[in-house]
Amino acid sequence: MTAIDGGLLSPVTVGTDASVTDAAVLDALVTAEVALVRAYGAVGLAPGSAVDAVSQTLGWQGAGLGCRGHGVELDGLAAAAVAGGNPVIPLVASLRAEVPEPARTWVHRGATSQDILDTALMIIARHATGEVLGALRSTEAALGSLAHAHRDHVAAARTLTQHAVPTTMGLRAATWLRGVRRAADRLGTTRDALPAQLGGAGGTLAAFAELAGGLERPRSAQPSDADAADTVRDLVAAFAEAVGLAVPDAPWHVTRWPITELGDALVQAVDAVGKLATDVATLSRTEIGEIAEGSGGGSSAMPQKRNPAASVLIRSAAIRAPQLGATLHIASGLAGDERPDGAWHAEWPTLRELLRLALGAAAHAAALAAGLRVDADAVDRNLGATRGLIIAERLSVVLGPLVGPDGVRAIVTSVSDGADLAQAVRLALADAGIEGVDVERLIDPRDYTGLAGELVDDAIAGAAATATDPGDTEAP
Amino acid sequence: MTAIDGGLLSPVTVGTDASVTDAAVLDALVTAEVALVRAYGAVGLAPGSAVDAVSQTLGWQGAGLGCRGHGVELDGLAAAAVAGGNPVIPLVASLRAEVPEPARTWVHRGATSQDILDTALMIIARHATGEVLGALRSTEAALGSLAHAHRDHVAAARTLTQHAVPTTMGLRAATWLRGVRRAADRLGTTRDALPAQLGGAGGTLAAFAELAGGLERPRSAQPSDADAADTVRDLVAAFAEAVGLAVPDAPWHVTRWPITELGDALVQAVDAVGKLATDVATLSRTEIGEIAEGSGGGSSAMPQKRNPAASVLIRSAAIRAPQLGATLHIASGLAGDERPDGAWHAEWPTLRELLRLALGAAAHAAALAAGLRVDADAVDRNLGATRGLIIAERLSVVLGPLVGPDGVRAIVTSVSDGADLAQAVRLALADAGIEGVDVERLIDPRDYTGLAGELVDDAIAGAAATATDPGDTEAP
Amino acid sequence: MTAIDGGLLSPVTVGTDASVTDAAVLDALVTAEVALVRAYGAVGLAPGSAVDAVSQTLGWQGAGLGCRGHGVELDGLAAAAVAGGNPVIPLVASLRAEVPEPARTWVHRGATSQDILDTALMIIARHATGEVLGALRSTEAALGSLAHAHRDHVAAARTLTQHAVPTTMGLRAATWLRGVRRAADRLGTTRDALPAQLGGAGGTLAAFAELAGGLERPRSAQPSDADAADTVRDLVAAFAEAVGLAVPDAPWHVTRWPITELGDALVQAVDAVGKLATDVATLSRTEIGEIAEGSGGGSSAMPQKRNPAASVLIRSAAIRAPQLGATLHIASGLAGDERPDGAWHAEWPTLRELLRLALGAAAHAAALAAGLRVDADAVDRNLGATRGLIIAERLSVVLGPLVGPDGVRAIVTSVSDGADLAQAVRLALADAGIEGVDVERLIDPRDYTGLAGELVDDAIAGAAATATDPGDTEAP
Amino acid sequence: MTAIDGGLLSPVTVGTDASVTDAAVLDALVTAEVALVRAYGAVGLAPGSAVDAVSQTLGWQGAGLGCRGHGVELDGLAAAAVAGGNPVIPLVASLRAEVPEPARTWVHRGATSQDILDTALMIIARHATGEVLGALRSTEAALGSLAHAHRDHVAAARTLTQHAVPTTMGLRAATWLRGVRRAADRLGTTRDALPAQLGGAGGTLAAFAELAGGLERPRSAQPSDADAADTVRDLVAAFAEAVGLAVPDAPWHVTRWPITELGDALVQAVDAVGKLATDVATLSRTEIGEIAEGSGGGSSAMPQKRNPAASVLIRSAAIRAPQLGATLHIASGLAGDERPDGAWHAEWPTLRELLRLALGAAAHAAALAAGLRVDADAVDRNLGATRGLIIAERLSVVLGPLVGPDGVRAIVTSVSDGADLAQAVRLALADAGIEGVDVERLIDPRDYTGLAGELVDDAIAGAAATATDPGDTEAP
Repeated sequence: MTAIDGGLLSPVTVGTDASVTDAAVLDALVTAEVALVRAYGAVGLAPGSAVDAVSQTLGWQGAGLGCRGHGVELDGLAAAAVAGGNPVIPLVASLRAEVPEPARTWVHRGATSQDILDTALMIIARHATGEVLGALRSTEAALGSLAHAHRDHVAAARTLTQHAVPTTMGLRAATWLRGVRRAADRLGTTRDALPAQLGGAGGTLAAFAELAGGLERPRSAQPSDADAADTVRDLVAAFAEAVGLAVPDAPWHVTRWPITELGDALVQAVDAVGKLATDVATLSRTEIGEIAEGSGGGSSAMPQKRNPAASVLIRSAAIRAPQLGATLHIASGLAGDERPDGAWHAEWPTLRELLRLALGAAAHAAALAAGLRVDADAVDRNLGATRGLIIAERLSVVLGPLVGPDGVRAIVTSVSDGADLAQAVRLALADAGIEGVDVERLIDPRDYTGLAGELVDDAIAGAAATATDPGDTEAP
Repeated sequence: MTAIDGGLLSPVTVGTDASVTDAAVLDALVTAEVALVRAYGAVGLAPGSAVDAVSQTLGWQGAGLGCRGHGVELDGLAAAAVAGGNPVIPLVASLRAEVPEPARTWVHRGATSQDILDTALMIIARHATGEVLGALRSTEAALGSLAHAHRDHVAAARTLTQHAVPTTMGLRAATWLRGVRRAADRLGTTRDALPAQLGGAGGTLAAFAELAGGLERPRSAQPSDADAADTVRDLVAAFAEAVGLAVPDAPWHVTRWPITELGDALVQAVDAVGKLATDVATLSRTEIGEIAEGSGGGSSAMPQKRNPAASVLIRSAAIRAPQLGATLHIASGLAGDERPDGAWHAEWPTLRELLRLALGAAAHAAALAAGLRVDADAVDRNLGATRGLIIAERLSVVLGPLVGPDGVRAIVTSVSDGADLAQAVRLALADAGIEGVDVERLIDPRDYTGLAGELVDDAIAGAAATATDPGDTEAP
Repeated sequence: MTAIDGGLLSPVTVGTDASVTDAAVLDALVTAEVALVRAYGAVGLAPGSAVDAVSQTLGWQGAGLGCRGHGVELDGLAAAAVAGGNPVIPLVASLRAEVPEPARTWVHRGATSQDILDTALMIIARHATGEVLGALRSTEAALGSLAHAHRDHVAAARTLTQHAVPTTMGLRAATWLRGVRRAADRLGTTRDALPAQLGGAGGTLAAFAELAGGLERPRSAQPSDADAADTVRDLVAAFAEAVGLAVPDAPWHVTRWPITELGDALVQAVDAVGKLATDVATLSRTEIGEIAEGSGGGSSAMPQKRNPAASVLIRSAAIRAPQLGATLHIASGLAGDERPDGAWHAEWPTLRELLRLALGAAAHAAALAAGLRVDADAVDRNLGATRGLIIAERLSVVLGPLVGPDGVRAIVTSVSDGADLAQAVRLALADAGIEGVDVERLIDPRDYTGLAGELVDDAIAGAAATATDPGDTEAP
Repeated sequence: MTAIDGGLLSPVTVGTDASVTDAAVLDALVTAEVALVRAYGAVGLAPGSAVDAVSQTLGWQGAGLGCRGHGVELDGLAAAAVAGGNPVIPLVASLRAEVPEPARTWVHRGATSQDILDTALMIIARHATGEVLGALRSTEAALGSLAHAHRDHVAAARTLTQHAVPTTMGLRAATWLRGVRRAADRLGTTRDALPAQLGGAGGTLAAFAELAGGLERPRSAQPSDADAADTVRDLVAAFAEAVGLAVPDAPWHVTRWPITELGDALVQAVDAVGKLATDVATLSRTEIGEIAEGSGGGSSAMPQKRNPAASVLIRSAAIRAPQLGATLHIASGLAGDERPDGAWHAEWPTLRELLRLALGAAAHAAALAAGLRVDADAVDRNLGATRGLIIAERLSVVLGPLVGPDGVRAIVTSVSDGADLAQAVRLALADAGIEGVDVERLIDPRDYTGLAGELVDDAIAGAAATATDPGDTEAP
């Protein structure tokens, strides 16, 4: 089973987190190590035979595709990681033991643990965010359909829990769509910029420059410093290409915005579906019932219940994600020295958990959005719950200038006390000697939805514009 | 391997979290279900044969010991938990399938998922906090020894990164000890009060009262409401005893202080060892070197390095834990209705991760404290780094009234510029015509440590007083 | 106006935060400084004339009452605090300028900025938490009355937003009460233990010991070290008494549990009223309407609205407070050296804001609880919304053994489809050939509230037991 | 004084937060209200006389410049805001009282409180982020100069607190610069997109459409719905222009990414300067002393101390900011209905405090960066602290292939034990029979800084490229 142990207490993430398990992380770590050897080959430092030997031994699948079947045992690696504080140290020993002798020297050459671990985090992040993006785009599409289908279905807007004015079910769906799309766009941009990490022990790339410069060679046979530097830059670019990540502008061992910007985008994604889930949970309340999940959850004790289970799980993610994002920022602000004494280590499980939450929340949101069912009768019934006063604001706007604020207030009060709205309005107009107001239209909620329809159309159009986005089309 | 998948990115928790794995949670869930049947038996509602059948089938080990070898497959349970949003729903189906027919009806009878899940969380929390407590007490003991051994070893106190006044290595250790002890005491108190949960579907215990009241019997054969209520109270008490937890004063489905108070205590424990680790990391800096971990971590690139690996890992936990505690509070404050729509679900993985962090951080702290080595030469060298001015405050206190603040400032300035401290003081006293001051003693840092020794003795005495605490002597 | 500038964007705190304004902090800082001089007097080190001069000049009001009218100008002090990073440095200069010459030397003698600032924080915390406690106790009392008045009023319990089983309005209120009481009890315990801070520059109390030891005197005239230490301990005790705080067991410059335990208790208090507010907001939804705030807020646009304004404001506090508590823990775990380089400074505004939130949330909760109005008709209407199926669990418990789970399911389905519940039950019983079941009673929600009444009585009895708590009877 | 009351406990923000005081917020609220009237005028709905009357009465200064001298009293407004939960309700009453009769009706017409409050938050955010940006750009410039000046000054790189390999002071500064620049760029982008808010009571813009449509006119005299919608869109655009903000793509009452994206960018800004401050604090430790703040803080007790006060204050902000960002996300994910019951209200003080922290931290960072002084001797001394082993990695890279890993380890061990590095290397080479290695160069740290110089040059070039950014050139 690929799910992370721990899923029993985290249903929101179960079944969606294969790309961030320890096995996936291990693949990514091996991928980073092999990519480095390949990069050495690409710039002419490592011999092709060494590159091939390492690639074959460790299951290289191609640039951006990573390693599979590398033979490194997950069991024990985590345990061995404790002594040195990170898994790369024992991993390198393990890889060197696997790789045949003449190629062995190129494994992890010039790199530091952080180069490999950060790059591996970015690799799994790229895969996972690709899946998140796909789910968010599906959510958008489903919400777009929902918005279209219910474009003009008038419903009660609620502010501070109270009926306010009319809105439409379509605008509600379009609003969810906008939040999801913004989050997806941002996540997509962030994803495209996820950088590889390569800086060497202190972020100077000195060991790489050493190898490019060839101190062991006679001085006359050594390239100029500038040429050596160019070789190192090429090495970094080749490494990034091999792992399928962006080329970093510089080592980012202790400038951690690649981590926090990713974290922020993931939290925003969870926020966006959290808003959707929060509304669905409310709208599916027994007394409201405007919306139901396609397949609500059962109850262990109460056979009649139909719980909004997906919304509940998504909301649990929305409550958790922001604090994980905060931890990444704390770590970033405290990233002291050339490698920090704890802040870096705090990022790893935190970023992974954020990825898991985004994966799970987005997947549930896609299913939720696709399955949402609107109870038209309930929508209509609720709209009428205030006996027509859902359009009270319109009375103020239209009748205020005609009968004065006190006149409007009197209408509202009399209707609250049981009077018929149309009659009350007519009475007030008659008292004021005013004629010609189209009362039926005035009190018709369907006539007081402002730009709701246009806003739906805009949102759908925007959705269409981004719907052609290919998402993650890479091999997983 | 029992460690949670995810350990590869969380070295601080590896090897210490067996008590909170999915397998442990599953055992606790089954334990809660069996305990409920046993409680029914204890109050005379369920027949002894049913109790025995369930207990034997599901591996009951005895009160407070839980279930082992119950035959429920972990694989698939997590996946089945997604539809309904929690693992108890499929678990009950699985258990009922295992248990022989006549006893089957008593499984989960009257309970709600939350009763079982909350109780299971408290069961694993009780085990895990027992281990945390043990590690904290070991840490205390080691720090007590350290404080004793270095009681009078004078060192530079640092405030805002700068040398301030003399302190002692002993007081430093005693300060760590005090923080750890306070946290341990609080965690112990919290642990003793961890309550079982039993409230039924809506927190009224109605189904239990129904079974105690016997509506199916003729009215005359039914107990009074008060008697039925007493039976239910006995049932709750028997349930709590069977699971080895405190009897709740009432169902706490939506009054979540048992969760947040536990979370707060766990965070405080991590804080306390975080402070220790922060100081060890600083004191083991290359330029400072007053302290070294017993077994520092190696480096993948730099053979000469000796990293404070345990401190680094503990600090990573200290950076992460507080935000997890905050999530529990958010969930508590938003615990709406009679069971909340997401806030409850957000607690489970969060509390588990907090337990993991506390387990790992405390275990590392115990080993760290036991292995700490003080470099006496470095301590002395650093103490002298400001050329004697570490006692500048004393000059102010003692000489201020004699030579005035300007006179003291002149001494400090001249020593900063290269003068000898003793000479500068004697010169200033001579200029002021003052005799009889014991200058050698005045400028001796060993003579200016205030109550450091007494504070060490107090701390050690307090440690001794709590050292007899048995910790968690239960079966795991 | 005493409110903190910033109230315009924080309505929840407006009008309740006089005890934590800059003016109050300044009073507390001056109080700590004067208390130190008085403590010197109490142990015989400072002459009575100096004590009197300082006390009179700076407006000493008596032990535990602090200083008023001390003449220190708030304007400029905050600005002057920036250079050194804390306000005590310029404050001491200001106080020394005010105090007549011979007494001047005793001002701040031997102390460090942290002694004064930490003590001042504890002073304002003691005052503020006294007010919070008073408001929480009032809330408890009002909720107790509410629980009593509606003890047996049956209502729909809701889990995961769906109607579940019957509960009572009384139990709902009792549940709120339990959460508030637990928080208040914990806050009260924490408040009683708030310690003064006195440790001197490095936490060794060396300068105080110096003054007690009298190095300037001939050796023969100096007290023994043990006697000097006793004098210092007496000094600390006298200082604590003068400021009305607990005597610390040791300086806690870098063992910050007094801050985090206070923070945790404040967050728990906000959680408890957050739960109340969350439920009130839900229950006052237009479609639910079971409860209304005594004085709902108006709307700038919609005359018919009655917003649950107090609940909304309390909820805003519940969303904010946990993260502030987390910041205090982060600071605690990173409290390096003998005074940390930023972690300490992060605590001050954070703790103050937590106090403000607790003050505001608790005050609003007290008013909210006192004014809550139950709409009995709405409660009854909602209870019937599922056409009797609110007692579906009871059907399972009672009829399950008689007609089987399928039989129960058939009843639920037929009623969901429009059948009458009583008839459906009778039909199922007849089909199964079962007689003698009291169907009217079986389907009566009022007969299926379990121990709700007893739980209400317990809660009220507990409330009564604590109602005699005097709260904060000190002068403000 | 313009500083927020509360500054006494928040020195980092003192003197920098004039743009976010209650007075500034009030100006922004009035600005939003006047801008709405002006927008009505711009689209031809309100008569010019009304626009002029409102503008003059309330001190309109011009588009993007806001209102001054509007005559609304701050005193009392905050208090009046409590009842309704926000300050706009009493503000509107106050403004209407000020404005002459025929114009009065246009004040707040069609708007909801959230339109005004959200817009006002964006207005102050635009001003404040302009100042933050200016300070960040100054910080960049100073760091660029520092990096240039110390481009080739070799220093010890530290990882996990231990000396690792050589780096340069220039690269250190360049690394700080990169983090600050990235944060500034992101904040600038975010700032340019800060949107006005205009949606009306339920986010449909219905009241605005009503006014544009003219229901009170004969049907034939009414514009088409499409024309009315266009007028509303023009109104929104005119409103945004008047307040100097971006035109929103739709009302964002409950899609809160404008708040969270701003919050994320502010936290990132604080992170970036937090990293700088963290390093400065470490590097200015008594034992390290490589760097000193231009004007260190004094001590109330220890005359010899020179505290890194600015770094300490910046770090206090870095510890606090992330949790505030998390609160904004929590609020975003829980933004239920068409206006949420607490989540919205939680944003206001949180966003303001984040702005304050960014303002203060950035201002201190600019001063810090401009004043930093490097102690070249200390840098050199520290570099030599490991007796040359700072280049141990190079030994592995260069000598590893020649003398084997064991040979390298033997060199490191012997030097650690006291041997001379050059001699040890020569001995090992001789033992292995290897000639021609330039040992002097091999062990020269200045020759092992990799691409440090190039990375510095890149960073400075990037800084120059953005240095022409005008920042906030608007009137404040």
